[in-house]
Amino acid sequence: MALGKDYVTQECSIARALEVVGERWTLLVVRDAIYGVRRYNDFLVHLGIPRAVLSTRLRTLTEEGVLEKRRYQESPPRDEYVVTERGAALWPVLRALGRWGREYVDTGRLRSFRHADCGGEVEPFGTCAQCGTLVPVADVVMVPGPDLDPAPADPVSRALLRPKRLLEPLETDAVHLAH
Amino acid sequence: MALGKDYVTQECSIARALEVVGERWTLLVVRDAIYGVRRYNDFLVHLGIPRAVLSTRLRTLTEEGVLEKRRYQESPPRDEYVVTERGAALWPVLRALGRWGREYVDTGRLRSFRHADCGGEVEPFGTCAQCGTLVPVADVVMVPGPDLDPAPADPVSRALLRPKRLLEPLETDAVHLAH
Repeated sequence: MALGKDYVTQECSIARALEVVGERWTLLVVRDAIYGVRRYNDFLVHLGIPRAVLSTRLRTLTEEGVLEKRRYQESPPRDEYVVTERGAALWPVLRALGRWGREYVDTGRLRSFRHADCGGEVEPFGTCAQCGTLVPVADVVMVPGPDLDPAPADPVSRALLRPKRLLEPLETDAVHLAH
Repeated sequence: MALGKDYVTQECSIARALEVVGERWTLLVVRDAIYGVRRYNDFLVHLGIPRAVLSTRLRTLTEEGVLEKRRYQESPPRDEYVVTERGAALWPVLRALGRWGREYVDTGRLRSFRHADCGGEVEPFGTCAQCGTLVPVADVVMVPGPDLDPAPADPVSRALLRPKRLLEPLETDAVHLAH
């Protein structure tokens, strides 16, 4: 059944947010962008979705100001997609979803989050268990957990097996082709 | 383009959560259930979606343990859908989405949230600005804001124009027919 992406009857800020990020795969694209994925082929191999879907999502998120398209190479021309402040502000949404998934879908310990400054664990509502700071997304370090696949097939998942500061660009061994 | 509802390639608790609540309209059904909507026709008039979509969402959410189906009248038989503890635990996801919508989509002041015990405002990460408690969802009072339509067409929106404690059943003037 085809359903439009808007919720015109809903006078509600949750509905307005979902009009921007509520489509299939969109929040996982934002997740990857916050993890530091920037290049088309990295999104492609990590998400494993059809190119048409990825291209549509990247275009919409760029139009909505959640991602910003930046030229990083002129010859041949290559663009990357960098998460904006507006996009990084979606981190609490992703954290809340991930916390619910871990607790209520029982996903095991896939990833944890630590405060870069002091190493304290970032608690469910975003404060550091050690120093009490409300940790900005740029100061969060993602740490792989014991239940992650230790030998994933794609280069982005491999790169994410190392502790990784959020928002900083992810370095992978992937080859970046035109698209 | 048809996309499945699962994210099988994603080893991620965010993806697992979205497999349960990531479909179109699903989080707005959960929102309504947390607001105290329990009856089929109340969901129907408030969401304004096709019956087939609503029925599918209610069935899936019941199967997933987010809602619980309860018989509230025997003759003629009538069921209602009551949010479970698992479902109420999605409140931080909805709050984070709503906060992002208000701040980044500029929805105006539609609703605010107060701590029932002391009247303090519930802050973005769920603590009470007045007493510092991490406020359980059952102790949150939703207060209508100045930018809400003061004369909405449907009975659920009208009932939600009064301050309303979350999870408690919403009383409306709607007629509840068979479905």
